[in-house]
Amino acid sequence: MVKESRVDVLIIGAGPSGLMCANALAGAGVDFRIVDNRPIGVPAGQADGIQPRTIEVLQSYGLAEPLLKDGAQMHLCAFYNPGPNGGIERTGRAADVTAPTARYPFKITIAQSTIEAVFIDSLKSQGIAVDRPIAPSSLEISEDAEELLNPLSYPVKVVLDHMLPSDTAPEQEIVHAKFVVGADGAHSWVRKTLGFSMDGEQSDYIWGVIDFVPDTDFPDIRNRCAIHSSNGSCMIIPREGDKVRFYLQMSDKDVMDPVTGRIDKAKVTAERLIDVARKTFYPYTVNEPKEVDWCSIYIIGQRVASKFSAKDRVFIAGDACHTHSPKAGQGMNASMNDTHNLAWKLAQVLRGRADISLLKTYELERQKYAQDLIDFDREFSALFSGKPRTSDNEEGVSHEQFLTAFQASGGFSSGIGVHYMPSAIVDTAHQACAPSIAIGQRMLPQIFVRVADARPVEIHDMLPSDTRFKLLVFVGLLTSEQLGKVGRLAEELELPTSFLQKYNHPAEGKAQSMFDIIPIAAGNKDDVNYLDIPPTFRTHWSKVLIDDTDVTGRLGGGAYERFGIDPKEITMVVVRPDGYVGMIAPSTAVESMDKYFGSFLIVRQEKP
Amino acid sequence: MVKESRVDVLIIGAGPSGLMCANALAGAGVDFRIVDNRPIGVPAGQADGIQPRTIEVLQSYGLAEPLLKDGAQMHLCAFYNPGPNGGIERTGRAADVTAPTARYPFKITIAQSTIEAVFIDSLKSQGIAVDRPIAPSSLEISEDAEELLNPLSYPVKVVLDHMLPSDTAPEQEIVHAKFVVGADGAHSWVRKTLGFSMDGEQSDYIWGVIDFVPDTDFPDIRNRCAIHSSNGSCMIIPREGDKVRFYLQMSDKDVMDPVTGRIDKAKVTAERLIDVARKTFYPYTVNEPKEVDWCSIYIIGQRVASKFSAKDRVFIAGDACHTHSPKAGQGMNASMNDTHNLAWKLAQVLRGRADISLLKTYELERQKYAQDLIDFDREFSALFSGKPRTSDNEEGVSHEQFLTAFQASGGFSSGIGVHYMPSAIVDTAHQACAPSIAIGQRMLPQIFVRVADARPVEIHDMLPSDTRFKLLVFVGLLTSEQLGKVGRLAEELELPTSFLQKYNHPAEGKAQSMFDIIPIAAGNKDDVNYLDIPPTFRTHWSKVLIDDTDVTGRLGGGAYERFGIDPKEITMVVVRPDGYVGMIAPSTAVESMDKYFGSFLIVRQEKP
Repeated sequence: MVKESRVDVLIIGAGPSGLMCANALAGAGVDFRIVDNRPIGVPAGQADGIQPRTIEVLQSYGLAEPLLKDGAQMHLCAFYNPGPNGGIERTGRAADVTAPTARYPFKITIAQSTIEAVFIDSLKSQGIAVDRPIAPSSLEISEDAEELLNPLSYPVKVVLDHMLPSDTAPEQEIVHAKFVVGADGAHSWVRKTLGFSMDGEQSDYIWGVIDFVPDTDFPDIRNRCAIHSSNGSCMIIPREGDKVRFYLQMSDKDVMDPVTGRIDKAKVTAERLIDVARKTFYPYTVNEPKEVDWCSIYIIGQRVASKFSAKDRVFIAGDACHTHSPKAGQGMNASMNDTHNLAWKLAQVLRGRADISLLKTYELERQKYAQDLIDFDREFSALFSGKPRTSDNEEGVSHEQFLTAFQASGGFSSGIGVHYMPSAIVDTAHQACAPSIAIGQRMLPQIFVRVADARPVEIHDMLPSDTRFKLLVFVGLLTSEQLGKVGRLAEELELPTSFLQKYNHPAEGKAQSMFDIIPIAAGNKDDVNYLDIPPTFRTHWSKVLIDDTDVTGRLGGGAYERFGIDPKEITMVVVRPDGYVGMIAPSTAVESMDKYFGSFLIVRQEKP
Repeated sequence: MVKESRVDVLIIGAGPSGLMCANALAGAGVDFRIVDNRPIGVPAGQADGIQPRTIEVLQSYGLAEPLLKDGAQMHLCAFYNPGPNGGIERTGRAADVTAPTARYPFKITIAQSTIEAVFIDSLKSQGIAVDRPIAPSSLEISEDAEELLNPLSYPVKVVLDHMLPSDTAPEQEIVHAKFVVGADGAHSWVRKTLGFSMDGEQSDYIWGVIDFVPDTDFPDIRNRCAIHSSNGSCMIIPREGDKVRFYLQMSDKDVMDPVTGRIDKAKVTAERLIDVARKTFYPYTVNEPKEVDWCSIYIIGQRVASKFSAKDRVFIAGDACHTHSPKAGQGMNASMNDTHNLAWKLAQVLRGRADISLLKTYELERQKYAQDLIDFDREFSALFSGKPRTSDNEEGVSHEQFLTAFQASGGFSSGIGVHYMPSAIVDTAHQACAPSIAIGQRMLPQIFVRVADARPVEIHDMLPSDTRFKLLVFVGLLTSEQLGKVGRLAEELELPTSFLQKYNHPAEGKAQSMFDIIPIAAGNKDDVNYLDIPPTFRTHWSKVLIDDTDVTGRLGGGAYERFGIDPKEITMVVVRPDGYVGMIAPSTAVESMDKYFGSFLIVRQEKP
């Protein structure tokens, strides 16, 4: 008899996207399972770049520390181009991250296996493991419209094959799931089963990639480098320890079988790749490497899935719905951010706190982003794969052209510039109240000072990805008149008709409540008594902040001005559970906040 | 038959001082044992303040992180004095740490048990545990002068009593040790056995102490506060979580048995202490606490042991050799820093790399410090225990008087100002080469940029407490002329007669070598090629630094100027294994460096 089971969320695939989803759902207390068809995780190679925004996201789950400690950091990008003597020469250097608001102004590189281990360890500490090796063999979604609209139903039926160690046939299990997340990679079985197409093209550019410990007199070997030489391009990505990664442009003759005209993977050995590097690096020398970790070859393909969701019950995420060139260092970041976007929405729907229509915003937000991403990637890859401009080739790519594209795309390639368009959860009506806090972008990092104990805190550290909406109440300069206004706003928000009462769940304890409130005063920390903030806004002594410098005068201050917030008014900034700004409103617009939350949250029913 | 054993170092006592010693020796690979007479560590209460310098020291062992994460931080100190209406009022606020060079400009408070756990976990990860409950019952040091001078001998014989769980007599063990560290607390058995006296006095001031979760309208309850009221003084120390500690001045009638005239501990209950607090805090209210953790009572006594060492074979450390008032937050810090000072010296002597006379500098450095500490403590306690100045009491302590003393003692109370006097290991001859790097003080924190990968690094993080001397070579502005000078210095240091050759142990691997070299260039990071630094000074790509800002322009730069180092010269700064500056020399004074190291290090013997 076939085993049958039920689960709220079934995650298929335990790469970075699936693991991010699992970790977020685990933190939210959601009932889920994560399965993977590989007996173990990736050993070496693969994706390895973590963008500034992804570091912020990992930090919001308390997971950035090991990566900051053990990863290599890329702070600088050096540019090399053909010099007058036939070899390459440095034409410039620039900050590798050109997003001025990045909390971490660098990229991290570290093995994908280490990143996966961080998630797996976090899950383990919560008593959860990846079920493997398990492969899905069929997936059906109910056609019953009523069932689909009921978040308590289990309309997805998946058959899982448990692979057994010997040659015996796999053991089958039927899983009834409320939701399924297909995070099963570029060759996604879930995507194919749903019949979604991958739209886009494959370029003719062929690249080799090698991870090794170099022995060279090249002075920028520990920086990210974009090298355009007459013998092909190379990108250097410094790695943890003494390793580096080279992405090397390959010519047809380097990789093709002359008879079949197809790529011959056997021809692409570490020796061959180092030979290509030697020509590219001239006049610098690249000696026989002491240690080679991994090498591979790939053809650039940029594609996005036609749909990211089937009936808002089955979702695909990560490589399953978008593929890019690895050199732009985007793939794994986009993948983790897909499920970071999805997880809190699933949690709130499963708790019965949000309408199931909230899940539509996943495809809305992430498909557009993926499309923008491959457009950027295509342009960047073409510039990088193109021939450099030399006296013989005036049509080639110039250093200025490349640098301009590199810097213009800084917000994008850092992940900091991700901007979600207006939707049920992005309301830009009152943008003017804080012109520099872009609604739809992630909340800006900023150091404030806690009024009660003068400790400086980064606001990002008060915005954990814990499924709660954060309400930053910029209460302004606390004159007695302003304190009166703050008191009246508190009273208004205590009315049973206010969103703060209708959608909150205080009885379920802090972790399950819908809102976390952080009041932020203007002025001088010595003039403010944290006990003057009304209890509605002061849920704990550590949560009352002020926009002032710390006692050393070195940290904090200037936020009201930088954000464009008037300290004589009260301005509320709603930060979504994923760290993105959902709406901003003045104290006079409580009604529009009621409307905002009312469009996707469900009014709390008092238990009988 | 009595069990006999041998060990290089026997540590008696597993409080903060003994555990710091154990952890440092474990890191150095020294053979040691640590025993303690208590069946388990301290449960609650006790010392709990960690000074800025102690945080730096813990960081040098990789142990600061959990305390930074979980401890309360004191950034601000508020001062209260009697107001015109009979109650207290705030007369001012100041940064709690007034040492401008502190890397961590705050103090941490956390339970002593948590601090001990950090050490115990670190030892555990190295396979080492505290042997307990074990008490020493006799200690003898050989009188044989030759044996005492031979670092390979075991001249100390200690009998240890292993306490058994039942009522049976303890099992005895004879331990033959090369060295013994007595870190067995204020009532030290080791100190008494050695016959060292404790010199100093006991004051008449009686203080109560209580750890609890407060319920009050006092606005500075989360800051450190020095409260002088007409009803007695109080110091508030905020603690981890929602707890605070009150130190409350008690009157005789609060604590004395009227019949015997002696302190009656039974009278000092939590209720009584809160009653005293109520009077002190008027007009603020202190309600019945929700939760009381611990309370106690003590009389201030400031004493220093007459000697810290017997025949340079048995040392006492921590409370065993100095006691202070807890309010100044010094005791545990001084204790941990005692063994931090001692451990690297023991390791180098035991390895046969340093002359046994090096151990004399322990008493020299730490006894003077302890004496300075109790002088400071006596003055501070008297000011704090004294009556406040009011219209009725013009002789009392004024706010200005207290604040001036508070701020003048900032270098001292933060631990940052600790300054060891000239000795075999502190040579001030060439102080003029870097006037702002005080020889005998800890190396100043400073952010530099790694030339190879533009990553900003705090120099303190390159000065781990790993028993090695760090040689910071300020190579200056690398013109071709300067590069020539740097090359010639490298050649000179490669000569077999140079200290770098005579005392280094490269064959033993990095961890056991005597020196770690860090070259630091002046100028612009884009103009320097790290490969231009001669291999003598460039032991790894990550170790070549430059005094420039990072790519964001926000971190680093200005060190040559701040330190007073001439970028046209070459200046070498010797940082001792404990982070204190041992000597500074220009490139023209290699000879005096040879002499410095020759005065306490032993020339390497080539293995036959």
